[in-house]
Amino acid sequence: MKQTFAIIGLGRFGGSLLKKLASAHQDVLGIDCDEELVEDYMAFATHTAIADGQDEDALRALDIASFDHVIIAIGHNIQASILTTILVKDLGAKHIVAKAETTTHAKVLARIGADMIVHPEAEMGRRVAHQLMTPNILNYIDLTKDYSLAEIRITNTALANKSLSAIDFRNKYRLNVIAVRHSSDNIKITPQPDEVIHLDDVLSVIGKNRDVDAFDAENSD
Amino acid sequence: MKQTFAIIGLGRFGGSLLKKLASAHQDVLGIDCDEELVEDYMAFATHTAIADGQDEDALRALDIASFDHVIIAIGHNIQASILTTILVKDLGAKHIVAKAETTTHAKVLARIGADMIVHPEAEMGRRVAHQLMTPNILNYIDLTKDYSLAEIRITNTALANKSLSAIDFRNKYRLNVIAVRHSSDNIKITPQPDEVIHLDDVLSVIGKNRDVDAFDAENSD
Amino acid sequence: MKQTFAIIGLGRFGGSLLKKLASAHQDVLGIDCDEELVEDYMAFATHTAIADGQDEDALRALDIASFDHVIIAIGHNIQASILTTILVKDLGAKHIVAKAETTTHAKVLARIGADMIVHPEAEMGRRVAHQLMTPNILNYIDLTKDYSLAEIRITNTALANKSLSAIDFRNKYRLNVIAVRHSSDNIKITPQPDEVIHLDDVLSVIGKNRDVDAFDAENSD
Amino acid sequence: MKQTFAIIGLGRFGGSLLKKLASAHQDVLGIDCDEELVEDYMAFATHTAIADGQDEDALRALDIASFDHVIIAIGHNIQASILTTILVKDLGAKHIVAKAETTTHAKVLARIGADMIVHPEAEMGRRVAHQLMTPNILNYIDLTKDYSLAEIRITNTALANKSLSAIDFRNKYRLNVIAVRHSSDNIKITPQPDEVIHLDDVLSVIGKNRDVDAFDAENSD
Amino acid sequence: MKQTFAIIGLGRFGGSLLKKLASAHQDVLGIDCDEELVEDYMAFATHTAIADGQDEDALRALDIASFDHVIIAIGHNIQASILTTILVKDLGAKHIVAKAETTTHAKVLARIGADMIVHPEAEMGRRVAHQLMTPNILNYIDLTKDYSLAEIRITNTALANKSLSAIDFRNKYRLNVIAVRHSSDNIKITPQPDEVIHLDDVLSVIGKNRDVDAFDAENSD
Amino acid sequence: MKQTFAIIGLGRFGGSLLKKLASAHQDVLGIDCDEELVEDYMAFATHTAIADGQDEDALRALDIASFDHVIIAIGHNIQASILTTILVKDLGAKHIVAKAETTTHAKVLARIGADMIVHPEAEMGRRVAHQLMTPNILNYIDLTKDYSLAEIRITNTALANKSLSAIDFRNKYRLNVIAVRHSSDNIKITPQPDEVIHLDDVLSVIGKNRDVDAFDAENSD
Amino acid sequence: MKQTFAIIGLGRFGGSLLKKLASAHQDVLGIDCDEELVEDYMAFATHTAIADGQDEDALRALDIASFDHVIIAIGHNIQASILTTILVKDLGAKHIVAKAETTTHAKVLARIGADMIVHPEAEMGRRVAHQLMTPNILNYIDLTKDYSLAEIRITNTALANKSLSAIDFRNKYRLNVIAVRHSSDNIKITPQPDEVIHLDDVLSVIGKNRDVDAFDAENSD
Amino acid sequence: MKQTFAIIGLGRFGGSLLKKLASAHQDVLGIDCDEELVEDYMAFATHTAIADGQDEDALRALDIASFDHVIIAIGHNIQASILTTILVKDLGAKHIVAKAETTTHAKVLARIGADMIVHPEAEMGRRVAHQLMTPNILNYIDLTKDYSLAEIRITNTALANKSLSAIDFRNKYRLNVIAVRHSSDNIKITPQPDEVIHLDDVLSVIGKNRDVDAFDAENSD
Repeated sequence: MKQTFAIIGLGRFGGSLLKKLASAHQDVLGIDCDEELVEDYMAFATHTAIADGQDEDALRALDIASFDHVIIAIGHNIQASILTTILVKDLGAKHIVAKAETTTHAKVLARIGADMIVHPEAEMGRRVAHQLMTPNILNYIDLTKDYSLAEIRITNTALANKSLSAIDFRNKYRLNVIAVRHSSDNIKITPQPDEVIHLDDVLSVIGKNRDVDAFDAENSD
Repeated sequence: MKQTFAIIGLGRFGGSLLKKLASAHQDVLGIDCDEELVEDYMAFATHTAIADGQDEDALRALDIASFDHVIIAIGHNIQASILTTILVKDLGAKHIVAKAETTTHAKVLARIGADMIVHPEAEMGRRVAHQLMTPNILNYIDLTKDYSLAEIRITNTALANKSLSAIDFRNKYRLNVIAVRHSSDNIKITPQPDEVIHLDDVLSVIGKNRDVDAFDAENSD
Repeated sequence: MKQTFAIIGLGRFGGSLLKKLASAHQDVLGIDCDEELVEDYMAFATHTAIADGQDEDALRALDIASFDHVIIAIGHNIQASILTTILVKDLGAKHIVAKAETTTHAKVLARIGADMIVHPEAEMGRRVAHQLMTPNILNYIDLTKDYSLAEIRITNTALANKSLSAIDFRNKYRLNVIAVRHSSDNIKITPQPDEVIHLDDVLSVIGKNRDVDAFDAENSD
Repeated sequence: MKQTFAIIGLGRFGGSLLKKLASAHQDVLGIDCDEELVEDYMAFATHTAIADGQDEDALRALDIASFDHVIIAIGHNIQASILTTILVKDLGAKHIVAKAETTTHAKVLARIGADMIVHPEAEMGRRVAHQLMTPNILNYIDLTKDYSLAEIRITNTALANKSLSAIDFRNKYRLNVIAVRHSSDNIKITPQPDEVIHLDDVLSVIGKNRDVDAFDAENSD
Repeated sequence: MKQTFAIIGLGRFGGSLLKKLASAHQDVLGIDCDEELVEDYMAFATHTAIADGQDEDALRALDIASFDHVIIAIGHNIQASILTTILVKDLGAKHIVAKAETTTHAKVLARIGADMIVHPEAEMGRRVAHQLMTPNILNYIDLTKDYSLAEIRITNTALANKSLSAIDFRNKYRLNVIAVRHSSDNIKITPQPDEVIHLDDVLSVIGKNRDVDAFDAENSD
Repeated sequence: MKQTFAIIGLGRFGGSLLKKLASAHQDVLGIDCDEELVEDYMAFATHTAIADGQDEDALRALDIASFDHVIIAIGHNIQASILTTILVKDLGAKHIVAKAETTTHAKVLARIGADMIVHPEAEMGRRVAHQLMTPNILNYIDLTKDYSLAEIRITNTALANKSLSAIDFRNKYRLNVIAVRHSSDNIKITPQPDEVIHLDDVLSVIGKNRDVDAFDAENSD
Repeated sequence: MKQTFAIIGLGRFGGSLLKKLASAHQDVLGIDCDEELVEDYMAFATHTAIADGQDEDALRALDIASFDHVIIAIGHNIQASILTTILVKDLGAKHIVAKAETTTHAKVLARIGADMIVHPEAEMGRRVAHQLMTPNILNYIDLTKDYSLAEIRITNTALANKSLSAIDFRNKYRLNVIAVRHSSDNIKITPQPDEVIHLDDVLSVIGKNRDVDAFDAENSD
Repeated sequence: MKQTFAIIGLGRFGGSLLKKLASAHQDVLGIDCDEELVEDYMAFATHTAIADGQDEDALRALDIASFDHVIIAIGHNIQASILTTILVKDLGAKHIVAKAETTTHAKVLARIGADMIVHPEAEMGRRVAHQLMTPNILNYIDLTKDYSLAEIRITNTALANKSLSAIDFRNKYRLNVIAVRHSSDNIKITPQPDEVIHLDDVLSVIGKNRDVDAFDAENSD
């Protein structure tokens, strides 16, 4: 379903968000006070406007309250981010997403009414830490506090060239194997016990966090 | 297994990475030329040093080549990021992770020998776009070009209070339900056909992208 | 009754507030990140501290939550004013007074929890406008929407050297004369009808706004 | 009576003064060298001009000497404030009001011929100090060195629900009650002795400062 | 007779003034807020002080009111020049000399109490103009509106190698020759009529301006 | 005789020179790279040009070599002053006058070919020193190393109301009195011995420096 | 043979290169983002363009890949130099010459694909050192590690006015004399043994470095 | 013979010159006002000093006049370069080498007395132009206006694997072959006619410029 988005601030975060939304055929208005930046995004956005997010008249003229989502992607100027957010809120925006630079900035945004707050640098810091510490866990989803889904690349030769039943996977590791992706990008959803796995195959497993960690540790030895 | 990390640049990305690694009991050296920033991270890091990443003697004195990972988390100064990366490379660092500000910056980093490149603002832009367009897909993992795993919150009353078999889930949507999380955080791994789902339950499904999208669309109506 | 006050920001507004409170024997802590400013106020304040209002540790060390009033008198830096206010609020301050530069700034301060908001430049603008338009109204207090108290200097010779009863003040102007201050600074509270008024005497009157204005207009002719 | 005003400098003080005068249907000319600021006030002022207050030709062209009042509301640039004031004086302005930033600035303005000098930040500092120390005194007017008029909110339950005569107000507190405003905004001018007062009623009293203070202290206990 | 001088501001004008006064064995105090400048003049001045001319306490500590002359030689900062002048005046200085940058600056200095005002750049501009237009007039003093004293170098061969009487100087040019300086630096005061003049001799003459100009024009042909 | 002047740099010195030359009906070209400054002098100069003195093509187009005098009055930018001077010299200017900021600057200007060098601030410094030390010497001209001409105001009552012969001026002071200016601006050239002088009369005298100084000292007692 | 050159950056190095190439009738495109610089070179270059070397679209429009040589002569901005080099490389330039500011900068340029790297300041430093130490060696070419060609000016009178055979040059100094240039600019290629040499003649010799140095030392005594 | 050198300015040119001179065991004093730069060169120079080249006292204290060569290697500050040069000249330096940034700068340096002037960027520009246009001419020395020595790499297969006599080198190309360097770095001085040359051999030739150019052109075909 097509929705309408207004993005205020076309820096790296705002610009990348705009391109992604536009490529998904959403209706996107890109706003920045820098004429050159606006020109760079004209080819992607449905509409663009050169305007200052702190200029109430300009925001009103753009009918900012009519958009399904207003994203305040203002870069390094915390003051502008805060003053724009309160203006947009007071003009009646339905759903406000705002980018925060610091924890205190995030608190102010929440207090003045932003509905969703994003911290790119801090979130990526945590994500990269995970990736460096457990390089064979390609992706993971925390399902609950105790359970998770994980994509794990097989690197331990002791596991290679054996069927799941030969490894006695389910009993030994207490994990369900949901999918096996062979290096040829050939994938087996809910594989049979006789599925043979090889080095560099990627297993999608579901189970308790401690079991996922234990399997990753053994596989990484 | 404990590894050693040197992080050059303790801005928001570097700082958040340092804290995450430190809280996982890794051995982390935090480096910045700003004395105040270094002091802020003393309580978290294993070691800290006030040094300029472009000062070869300083990096050598810190034995930068001995670390398992060197992360160049230098903020907005592209020149410093590039010159530090080449110095670290020439000093023999084993695994270099570098933060890029732009696509061209990323290309230079790759060419001069960075092993892994991170774009926080651009990656978060894409991630947030996805989240806004498909708010009921809480998380997803692309398994191959065609298949994915997704966590979907049930919001369509037509699906509520029925068992999976009553919905005829597998046939109708061509998706495997791997887990059902009830609002009480009670989770059922590989649920039975008689598992009843309710509004706001979260289903983990696996299947073709187009089938995931179709189900999300029907659920979001 | 002695109260405790912490003033963050010792510019013109904060400094003048500090001196007034100190001269009334209140317990005042003056805080600024500018060492020279802090030194200027050491002779007046009960205590002083060199600290940045955005530094949570510093504010905690000063036990900011224990003060009866915390005044955020930060000058022209709107961002610092906002971030300090939210920190002080979260640290549990009982009563927060904050200086605003603009209407939008004031709105943010209100939303994040300031209890009282002051706009020196704007309020003085309105006050001076009143004074220039009605130079003979030395002071006034709006009692309700319709009634006010006003101090009016007599400048119309037609009113001079007559008793209140001769002028038939109450009936003619529909105002109660509460006090008459003669040029010798000799004052008569609730004067008798035979009190004679002269040029440059100051009458304190109470009545409807339109009657005050009418009398001022006639007197100013 | 309509007067003419020229305001040089449309910052917060000058702008707020302009709006107040304009809303009282005075004839106001707003002058600033910043084109954007001038545009913001076009809708309010009778006339506007983009001009530098230090440009003698420009001031002459605007016939600055013909105005009843010239207000030099130049913000933070003390030099510009001084040089404009002397130019305006030498061009023959009748009545000059100038905003001062510091005590020394005020002295220079007086010496070069300003007729009235305003210090917004310092005056508001004193006013707010008073308000914080005596929160129940809503407003006050100093009539002479010893006497004042004050609006006091009743907060002491010992005074509530009694008539003025029951309290024996005049004898006990040596103050005349000029008006009683009940919470319904209903006001009694020169109330009778049987007027009953309640919590949160506001009394307008006249008397000696020390008696006003004593009553406020007892009421605030 | 030895006098005491305080010079505030040791730029090119103040410094050159200080050196000249010091070389004439006057008692000179040199003051500047720039430590390096003060050091440069330590060898010349009787006393020096590192102080800001706008710091009332510092000026009082230097007992500025006790000096015979206070010279405010503050360079390009008009505001500092004005604020220092008023402070020095209010501290009771006996004779204040101030350097002005512009005509308006000079007016302010006069109005706030400077006793003597100097404009180096403007005065030298006028002096050089005179010198370029009448290069043979080496020096001149305006005695009254109509009369002047002038030193004129002889460049016209028609005047060379003749006695004053042969030229019939007094009658022909209506000027008195007060002195003749021959190229050997040999000077004749109130020369006799038989004094012979040569090319490049310098005549000191006294007379009406128009006669001086006429003689200069003929001599310059 | 009318001459042609090109002035490069229209700051205070250049501007004041331009006005003086123009008022003497000389042919003056004013040049500056600041458009506003050039506009200010359009009404005075014969011609004006917006040009950078370091732009050889621009100077050539203005035919700078054809002027009788080129004055390089460039303000505080020593580098621009030097580079312009050498360009103007190489283009063949006949007579170059350059303003120096410092002694070293003056040396460079001399070495690269400036014909006359002016130091406004330093020369005025010396002049003002003389004036403050000998306030009764209104003007003076150094004729040779030993002789000078001086204008002295009479302030000693012992000299007042006596004729020159009664004072025995010539013998007592070894000075020739060339002129006496009475306070009415009435002047006597080469006065007779019976000329009576009064307080505040101004005497023009010629003689040895030490005799001028001795007379000034006695007169100033 | 005519080749095509694109020079990005028209500072001193780029500009001097452009002029030299243009004067040799090569086809040269000069590019800079500074419009004034581009205008300065219009008269010399075959083509010019105002463009930023970091703007991929602009470089593509200029068909940068079609040139025989692309010279990145960007001045002091190391970041711009690096980012332009990688863009030009990725657009397929055939031969890239880049100017380096430092050794580290040079390393980055090499790693990202520059074919030839130039260090003007460092190379000239080495050259001038040689010239100052051996002022009689006017030029030299290192042929191999041990052999060189050198132009040496004769300054030792012991060598003057003798034939090469009289000096027994070849045996005594172990050097071949390839040419003798007499002061009249008359040159003898491969001179005969009876060629007589004089003071200030210039000998071109070939031989071992140590023999060249020994001869230079003896000649310089 | 050991000489003494003082280098003022330790930027890239000065620093590289210092290192080269020091490595040749010359006596070198390195001077800069930047403490960090001076520290970087302490290990190389015989002596170092932190001093400003415009500080006459400092230069005198270093006895600058006693050095055999004073090199003014001041970077981008043309004014400092000029003022230092004149100071050094006036202090009596024997031989002054100065780096110029522009042609006008060079002219000023020459006029104020620099003995040798170096333009790194411009000279390298010309050198690189030559190298790009004639890539097979590795080095060359201009002997006279018409004759030169050149090192040429053989790239034309028509010339390969033949003896000089077979090619009839001397007659055909009118050039003397002074040396042949084979790719093995084996060199033949004044080779015999039967010397065989191969691709990539380097010939040192002497002859007329037009003959060198003709041979290079044929070889490069």
